[in-house]
Amino acid sequence: MAKKTRVSIAVVRRLPRYHRYLEELLKKGVKRISSKELSEIMNITASQIRQDLNVYGGFGQQGYGYNTEELYKKLSEIIGIGKTYNMIIIGAGNMGQALANYPNFEKYGFKIIGIFDRNPKMFGLKIRDVEIMDVDKIGEFVRHNRVDIAIICVPSENAQKVADKVVEMGIKAIWNFAPTDIDVPDDVVVENVHLSDSLLSICYRMNEDDLFKKLGKK
Amino acid sequence: MAKKTRVSIAVVRRLPRYHRYLEELLKKGVKRISSKELSEIMNITASQIRQDLNVYGGFGQQGYGYNTEELYKKLSEIIGIGKTYNMIIIGAGNMGQALANYPNFEKYGFKIIGIFDRNPKMFGLKIRDVEIMDVDKIGEFVRHNRVDIAIICVPSENAQKVADKVVEMGIKAIWNFAPTDIDVPDDVVVENVHLSDSLLSICYRMNEDDLFKKLGKK
Repeated sequence: MAKKTRVSIAVVRRLPRYHRYLEELLKKGVKRISSKELSEIMNITASQIRQDLNVYGGFGQQGYGYNTEELYKKLSEIIGIGKTYNMIIIGAGNMGQALANYPNFEKYGFKIIGIFDRNPKMFGLKIRDVEIMDVDKIGEFVRHNRVDIAIICVPSENAQKVADKVVEMGIKAIWNFAPTDIDVPDDVVVENVHLSDSLLSICYRMNEDDLFKKLGKK
Repeated sequence: MAKKTRVSIAVVRRLPRYHRYLEELLKKGVKRISSKELSEIMNITASQIRQDLNVYGGFGQQGYGYNTEELYKKLSEIIGIGKTYNMIIIGAGNMGQALANYPNFEKYGFKIIGIFDRNPKMFGLKIRDVEIMDVDKIGEFVRHNRVDIAIICVPSENAQKVADKVVEMGIKAIWNFAPTDIDVPDDVVVENVHLSDSLLSICYRMNEDDLFKKLGKK
């Protein structure tokens, strides 16, 4: 089973969101913000915000609110932004290519240093200066380069095999875009982005009122 | 504020996951499964599974477990799979193109019927037989075609404007890939896929042990 978090997964999900909102506020020149104001723009209760931040020491002054820049920096530290993280993409299909082209990751220090596929026609092609290599050469690549995160963009049926391989090579974090869950030892971080699940949850929410009517619930 | 769900968002997130696991089981020829077995493969407690399904009537027979195919069909009904949903993509950059190329959505009835961009060089190009059109023509397109879901893949700074526009045209569901939250009226479903948030949560989880050591917590 993948690595567990010390705080609830809900808190883990909110941390990047706080960070994102504070970045927006900083861009707008907002120097100070109360937990009440932050609560209103983020749609989270003020007490939830205080509770979340208290896990890491709390940073507001009663009655004065938060210094935006200070809180932003603290959140960056909490999340671990500021170092460089090397990533490889496995599977250079549509999703792999889209991620390789995504410029937003670099600003937080996430660098794609290798892309791998099993299609020989792709070997040697480059996406934003990063070469697509033979998937059989991952082992060699990882021995010569520090890789922090493996991004899995292969079809479902190969996802577990690829995951096993990257775990065996000592990579401790996997960002999984294959539409299936993967098993890893409990010192490995796995984050799934299951787009079909996300779409089906929209589907459910569009139909929920009708469903409850049919079920005879208001 | 976007449309609220009648059940907790955690339940909404689990429904597509149940559906996915049952589909896998069906493919493997598993005809019957107990909530305990399902619980083990899905890493959810058996009582959670029973509780989730009870919202919609419950479907297992005490001691006999679930009929896989029946439960799969029931979950499809609950989620609303089986109808056709028409989608448009706004923003034909990397992410928009990757989604347009994603074959997995169609099997559940989600069909991309239009792609829009503001770059004239793209007008007339096709992705899997769907034409890229001028974003200014969305209004006209929506008047002549039923659109159920708008997929927003534009940069942050344009996301709210685009969301306002699609809401104004009467579209009731938005799948938002722009790295920013959007405001919509409370009869509109919004599902955000914030990839940077997802990546930052990996980052946090990789660093959490060190962070708690620094904070002096075990």
